[in-house]
Amino acid sequence: MPRVSSDHLQARRRQILDGSRACFARHGYEGATVRRLEEATGLSRGAIFHHFKDKESLFLALAEDDAERMADVVAQQGLVQVMRDLLSDPQGREGAAPGADWLGTRLEVSRRLRTDAEFRSRWAQRSEQLTAATRERLKRQHRSGNLRDDVDVDVLTSYLELVLEGLVSHLAMGLPADDLDPVLDLVEESVRRHRSG
Amino acid sequence: MPRVSSDHLQARRRQILDGSRACFARHGYEGATVRRLEEATGLSRGAIFHHFKDKESLFLALAEDDAERMADVVAQQGLVQVMRDLLSDPQGREGAAPGADWLGTRLEVSRRLRTDAEFRSRWAQRSEQLTAATRERLKRQHRSGNLRDDVDVDVLTSYLELVLEGLVSHLAMGLPADDLDPVLDLVEESVRRHRSG
Repeated sequence: MPRVSSDHLQARRRQILDGSRACFARHGYEGATVRRLEEATGLSRGAIFHHFKDKESLFLALAEDDAERMADVVAQQGLVQVMRDLLSDPQGREGAAPGADWLGTRLEVSRRLRTDAEFRSRWAQRSEQLTAATRERLKRQHRSGNLRDDVDVDVLTSYLELVLEGLVSHLAMGLPADDLDPVLDLVEESVRRHRSG
Repeated sequence: MPRVSSDHLQARRRQILDGSRACFARHGYEGATVRRLEEATGLSRGAIFHHFKDKESLFLALAEDDAERMADVVAQQGLVQVMRDLLSDPQGREGAAPGADWLGTRLEVSRRLRTDAEFRSRWAQRSEQLTAATRERLKRQHRSGNLRDDVDVDVLTSYLELVLEGLVSHLAMGLPADDLDPVLDLVEESVRRHRSG
């Protein structure tokens, strides 16, 4: 009997994550029933829960996956770019921050953080990743002299995260977002070094 | 038979708004049943719905009342002060922006905006009030030379509203807020005129 290759396992895992992401985004955590997850992934419940212990583990893996992809974009291009991607292309694209589906996961995370203390502690470890990527990026910017140096890097990190939180909430409420590009310019400029002219 | 005085009507209306605010904040819109609203206000359903057509109208009056109180604080002290009040005294106090209860109403508004298109259009007219107060305040600051003049007042208004949205979301998720004071300093400073020194 041939051993299942690691590549195959990875591909299957990816298939489940991608399918269930859209499902959670569309139906919310509670509404993403096992039947709907089967439809969305094209796999049986047996196959799905062979890879993930339960629905909660699947959802956390998804949120973790999103956080990793965002951390990559942050490391390369900064948190403001993540926000710009959200604004300009809510469907998401290759190499960009995750778009609408990510927004769905993120909102579901927000909702569960408000209502579920155990989830809050499980999530805390995972969300730290994005904060760390943001802080690292800002430190690099600082070393290369692009960052303002009169405000602590931790304050700048919290500032950018707060604006991202506002943007997520804004988009989630379906409020008009076509006037937000200059707002993000302002956000970006306010963490940069001001060269006296 | 003596006529019911206008003062009395106003006081009764205030009693209903104050009682039901805590009730909506605690139980959410759906969970704030008529029985709970009776308990929270100390009045019968007959008395409550004499003053407000139905639960939706009561909730909108409440949201409108909060928006008015916030607009007053904004006019006097600016939107950043509203945020500082939220941070420093989530219980709210006389003359300050509404605190925790306001947060509850606001979250409920956010949730319904996401899920209820009709509510979205009824709300749009009311939320405009806070935006207008913020814009007016910024224009006055601009005239007195305290505001940066390289960015449009509308952009600064959207910026401050986006940060407020992020703060509401942050607090609602129960995330630590004790490090946010310097973040609000940064926000305030980033709309001010930079005097070259």
